[in-house]
Amino acid sequence: MGSTGAGFGFEVRARLGAGAGRTGVIVTPHGRIATPAFVPVGTAAAVKGATPEQMAALGAQALLANAYHLYLRPGADVVEQAGGLGAFMNWAGPTFTDSGGFQVLSLGAGFKKVLAMDTAGLADDQVIAKRSERLAAVDEDGVTFRSHLDGSRHRFTPEVSMGVQHRLGADIIFAFDECTTLMNTRSYQERSVARTQAWAERCLAEHARLTESRAGLPYQALFGVVQGAQFEDLRRGAARGLVRLAAGGREFDGYGIGGALVKENLAAIVGWVCAELPWAKPRHLLGISEVDDLFAAVAAGADTFDCVAPSRLARHGGVYSADGRYNVTRARFARDFGPLDADCDCQTCAGYSRAYVHHLLRSRELLGYTLATIHNERFTVRLVDSMRAAIESGGAAGFDRLRDRFLSRYFGP
Amino acid sequence: MGSTGAGFGFEVRARLGAGAGRTGVIVTPHGRIATPAFVPVGTAAAVKGATPEQMAALGAQALLANAYHLYLRPGADVVEQAGGLGAFMNWAGPTFTDSGGFQVLSLGAGFKKVLAMDTAGLADDQVIAKRSERLAAVDEDGVTFRSHLDGSRHRFTPEVSMGVQHRLGADIIFAFDECTTLMNTRSYQERSVARTQAWAERCLAEHARLTESRAGLPYQALFGVVQGAQFEDLRRGAARGLVRLAAGGREFDGYGIGGALVKENLAAIVGWVCAELPWAKPRHLLGISEVDDLFAAVAAGADTFDCVAPSRLARHGGVYSADGRYNVTRARFARDFGPLDADCDCQTCAGYSRAYVHHLLRSRELLGYTLATIHNERFTVRLVDSMRAAIESGGAAGFDRLRDRFLSRYFGP
Repeated sequence: MGSTGAGFGFEVRARLGAGAGRTGVIVTPHGRIATPAFVPVGTAAAVKGATPEQMAALGAQALLANAYHLYLRPGADVVEQAGGLGAFMNWAGPTFTDSGGFQVLSLGAGFKKVLAMDTAGLADDQVIAKRSERLAAVDEDGVTFRSHLDGSRHRFTPEVSMGVQHRLGADIIFAFDECTTLMNTRSYQERSVARTQAWAERCLAEHARLTESRAGLPYQALFGVVQGAQFEDLRRGAARGLVRLAAGGREFDGYGIGGALVKENLAAIVGWVCAELPWAKPRHLLGISEVDDLFAAVAAGADTFDCVAPSRLARHGGVYSADGRYNVTRARFARDFGPLDADCDCQTCAGYSRAYVHHLLRSRELLGYTLATIHNERFTVRLVDSMRAAIESGGAAGFDRLRDRFLSRYFGP
Repeated sequence: MGSTGAGFGFEVRARLGAGAGRTGVIVTPHGRIATPAFVPVGTAAAVKGATPEQMAALGAQALLANAYHLYLRPGADVVEQAGGLGAFMNWAGPTFTDSGGFQVLSLGAGFKKVLAMDTAGLADDQVIAKRSERLAAVDEDGVTFRSHLDGSRHRFTPEVSMGVQHRLGADIIFAFDECTTLMNTRSYQERSVARTQAWAERCLAEHARLTESRAGLPYQALFGVVQGAQFEDLRRGAARGLVRLAAGGREFDGYGIGGALVKENLAAIVGWVCAELPWAKPRHLLGISEVDDLFAAVAAGADTFDCVAPSRLARHGGVYSADGRYNVTRARFARDFGPLDADCDCQTCAGYSRAYVHHLLRSRELLGYTLATIHNERFTVRLVDSMRAAIESGGAAGFDRLRDRFLSRYFGP
């Protein structure tokens, strides 16, 4: 098994035909993750509406929390003092934290992901995101932003992000990157990729320093994040740039694929990037959970996924089922005593009806959020698990059969 | 075992010295309740923030829901169609519904429990509760009120309440009563007790009719509700009045004690009422859960209790512990990595710290409500369970020892 740090490793188990997709196992100090795997998100060190016991029962292999949110509240030092993220949130399995790059630029700028970058009249290489009185400003060294909680000013640099993520103590952490949007100009994207590359090198150095200075603690694996928006040359170049850093003696343990992914370009982008990344390293696709996107991304070579959508959707009544997505708060479910999804094996579908969840969500009862979240998270975890099983038992033909059957029913008439 | 309806019964097991307190077992079609017992409340057919599985795991023997709330939403017919309250909410054990008398007068009048009764200038024997544009009006036949959800007009009579509660299908239901406050005049309380007595007789008749017409369904036990505010003669008279109805051939399966109970008069009122009630029937004290009140009420002869306080308090950060109540959202708990209550055996105290629950509640994370609710419900259920155990193993001396030790620590320096 390939390993770049004690206690961490990744092994490919089966290849999806002659393609880029595969199954594997990620080993971390807190346990193994069979891939491909969906990793549910607990932004503030808690999956909204579900206990860690419920998440384990529904088959979640790992959880991902957010460095930006935890830095602001309760503070990385509190999580560190608790014994790290897993101990703090009572989750015994593997944990991830994302770097906060996306959040300092979007939430820090005032809850909206629309960033007014490359605006005429602003200094070159400086991005200002405005909303109300809030600002997030990117410079070569890092990002200065205001807290979305209280407006206080903060600054993240690659070194700050590494320090925060080391104190949080997740098994898999991400390099600090700049997350752009499809609306940015090509020239801005070029400068941004160069900046993310420079930050990646600084993250590797700081990660090595912190790993050494914190000897005795479980090894944290660092993933570099590939940006480059919708441009093939930028994406490939960004991936190659990160891989090339290994020549300097410091290598990423895996790679994240971030930013600007929409249905139309997702498979292509993951494909370009994975073609440039070493086969022996795990690849995490950030912020994706729609069923067709998951099939496309697995086929294109992504190993793990995270997304807030299953729980966020649940809180608004959105429910996944084998027959497609629907909203259980609609009037026609008031007397539907069937389960949310007749094909599902989750705790909610075993004991509760659509009519009951409908009633709870209409009444804004907390239990409604819990039951719908458990179902949606289980649905997504199980879907990716079923892809893994299909590849391992049926190869490319098995995967294609699963995909065609699943998607035609999901999106069917 | 005494029984007045197939599948329902109550048996006294141990007496608390020579006093009115006792332990016992209530048998219902959906299982047994060892008494004294605290019955957690799921107002809208859901304990706010906890699953039925979690409620069972923390030792809840039964749950109580609210007829008024379920009548308005989702409608008693929906619950009936689901197979009754227990089936609807996925709770296999015994269930209670209260009659809605308290809620139509308080919530129906606009969320406030302050009712402007006996107001000068209003017609005699008519009570108007005003707030904004909403009204709840009591007359001899029933109560007309507006929904707190949409302002729509509704009318509850004893017959309507019985009909609703039969459709809801709980194991133990309550007669429709008028719930007064300590602010009402003596003469109003007299008229109100007479009205509640007349309604009780109508409830018994309607209950008998519905029970017969719905043969084959599990028997629902009907409890009469004793009112009479803080007046000994009214309380005793109200209890005797309800008991006397047995002479007419129709008997309550148990009794509720409602209304106007405050710390200063609680033990006295329960004592007066229980002295008039038949020893062989269970007695439910409505809406009580403070620790000293529970000790006093058990000693005075109450068998079961319900209250929203444990979960409501939890949602605002209020936490019970052996060393008293505190608010875990206070700043000094931000780095307290101990459990909510070192003496507690609940799921929350087993795996989660004060610092974590503090963080969750400060962040308004749903999981915070869940973890605090599980703890507070367990604390209350277990406290009453410990009274039962003390009486059965140690008699009056054992109960007194438990009470003195518990309360001196709880309220101690």
